[in-house]
Amino acid sequence: MGLVLANDILARALERIQREVDARFDGLLPVPDDARARLIEAMRYATIGGGKRVRPLLLTATAEMYGVSRGCAVLAGCAVESIHAYSLIHDDLPCMDNDDMRHGKPTLHKAFDEATAVLAGDSLHALAFEILSMPEVSTDPYVRSDLVLALAAASGASGMAGGQMMDIVAEEQEFDLHTVTRLQQLKTGALLAASVEMGAILGRVSEEGRGHLRAYARDIGLAFQIADDLLDTSGDEAKAGKALRKDADAGKATFVSLMGEEKARDQAYALSEQAVGHLSQHGEEADVLRALARFIVERDR
Amino acid sequence: MGLVLANDILARALERIQREVDARFDGLLPVPDDARARLIEAMRYATIGGGKRVRPLLLTATAEMYGVSRGCAVLAGCAVESIHAYSLIHDDLPCMDNDDMRHGKPTLHKAFDEATAVLAGDSLHALAFEILSMPEVSTDPYVRSDLVLALAAASGASGMAGGQMMDIVAEEQEFDLHTVTRLQQLKTGALLAASVEMGAILGRVSEEGRGHLRAYARDIGLAFQIADDLLDTSGDEAKAGKALRKDADAGKATFVSLMGEEKARDQAYALSEQAVGHLSQHGEEADVLRALARFIVERDR
Repeated sequence: MGLVLANDILARALERIQREVDARFDGLLPVPDDARARLIEAMRYATIGGGKRVRPLLLTATAEMYGVSRGCAVLAGCAVESIHAYSLIHDDLPCMDNDDMRHGKPTLHKAFDEATAVLAGDSLHALAFEILSMPEVSTDPYVRSDLVLALAAASGASGMAGGQMMDIVAEEQEFDLHTVTRLQQLKTGALLAASVEMGAILGRVSEEGRGHLRAYARDIGLAFQIADDLLDTSGDEAKAGKALRKDADAGKATFVSLMGEEKARDQAYALSEQAVGHLSQHGEEADVLRALARFIVERDR
Repeated sequence: MGLVLANDILARALERIQREVDARFDGLLPVPDDARARLIEAMRYATIGGGKRVRPLLLTATAEMYGVSRGCAVLAGCAVESIHAYSLIHDDLPCMDNDDMRHGKPTLHKAFDEATAVLAGDSLHALAFEILSMPEVSTDPYVRSDLVLALAAASGASGMAGGQMMDIVAEEQEFDLHTVTRLQQLKTGALLAASVEMGAILGRVSEEGRGHLRAYARDIGLAFQIADDLLDTSGDEAKAGKALRKDADAGKATFVSLMGEEKARDQAYALSEQAVGHLSQHGEEADVLRALARFIVERDR
């Protein structure tokens, strides 16, 4: 598969999932005619028309390899994106990263206010689990329950939130490469891995098949975060749509500060190729996942 | 059933559920030997040894009427309490109610810091759904999925978080009794009702039986909030373990400001008796729910 073709496949897949996720959130979040309107408007602000939708794409691309209907996979993808969106809202709060810009527009607490941001994040967190208990995601309650467990475990103290706690502690302590790797596996890797896992749950993939997919997810998770660190060091703020150079300013150890820029870049590309290698048993039905593994390290935002 | 006996039944039931919930959270939240320790300590601070455990008691008392094993009901009760605890943490934040004391000790952001409070709340939110997808809660995945839906719907924008949003808007707008009732049904009532509903889900109660239980839950939810407003007006801060007189200071309409203290008190007692009336088809197995309905309006904290 040539690079141009891969880019073409990915561009079409991203465009499609962005449109589908936007449409789903639009339907899931009708604005009520009462004092809750402000909250729902804030939830819409955070979920419609922003973000690359990498997680829903990972989920749907995995699920479709196993013949899962598109509608079910996109809905489950909205649950993952709902968790991702809530985490960005809370992460941007003044008491956390204190960011003013996200996806090229004001962060939610800037566009609304802090209290609305806390509540909109909390409401999107709950929405994720509401979605996953809908029979439209799967008529099989075992599948729904497994999806809930995978997503809840990835978002809580043993996953994303735990990684964010480590990230705060990183401002006070000097972390080594092993600890930074662990931090990023939790903070970013857990939800990316859950996206692939949830696709596999919907597809009722065997344990052996899941092993390969998990190895793929682990590698792209780490590659994703190294690429993020590289963007933070040398990226373009206008393209990124958010403030950069924050880790260095906060004195946090990152892959780039610990390995150097060149070695970090080599490592990201090596992980991306290693991820593609875990898909060797699959044919062209895995081309989107392959293209995504390469996109993750080449992206400029 | 005399008042002394009712108080005795309730005191024993509360003491028992408090002990069981504490023990469960202790087991669910082992402190890890890494940088996440601070987060887990904060989650323990918010869940162990504090609160009346009204919601887990509602859930277990309902479930036990239908022969559900105690262990399953207590675990599901921890899920509801986990949601309740997260909502208190976020509600106490400076950008929300800005409270310094809760359950007679410093609020979480005072004892730790704001960032840890946001993350501990988020982690408890996720923990609730992790708990509900454990086979220990129920080996029947239909039951687990129904529990998730009931709790997620009660905690999100169409439930508790929606009510909190209305509560913020109440500082700017003059709400009438109808709107304040709706606000409280969402802010407090939804989670209390979910506690009873989840007990009924575990007990596989028929639709007809659930109708009575829902009517009971609706009445005690409203009675609970009127009692809260009365406590806010004329309660003892030392007993309450938190700051009072906040609604009046913020100029918010409450049941007391709209109805007057005497009429509000009458209404709370009438709702409590009406709630007890909805249990008329039950024998002494409903005595804890009856005693709880009366306790809710008589409590001084």
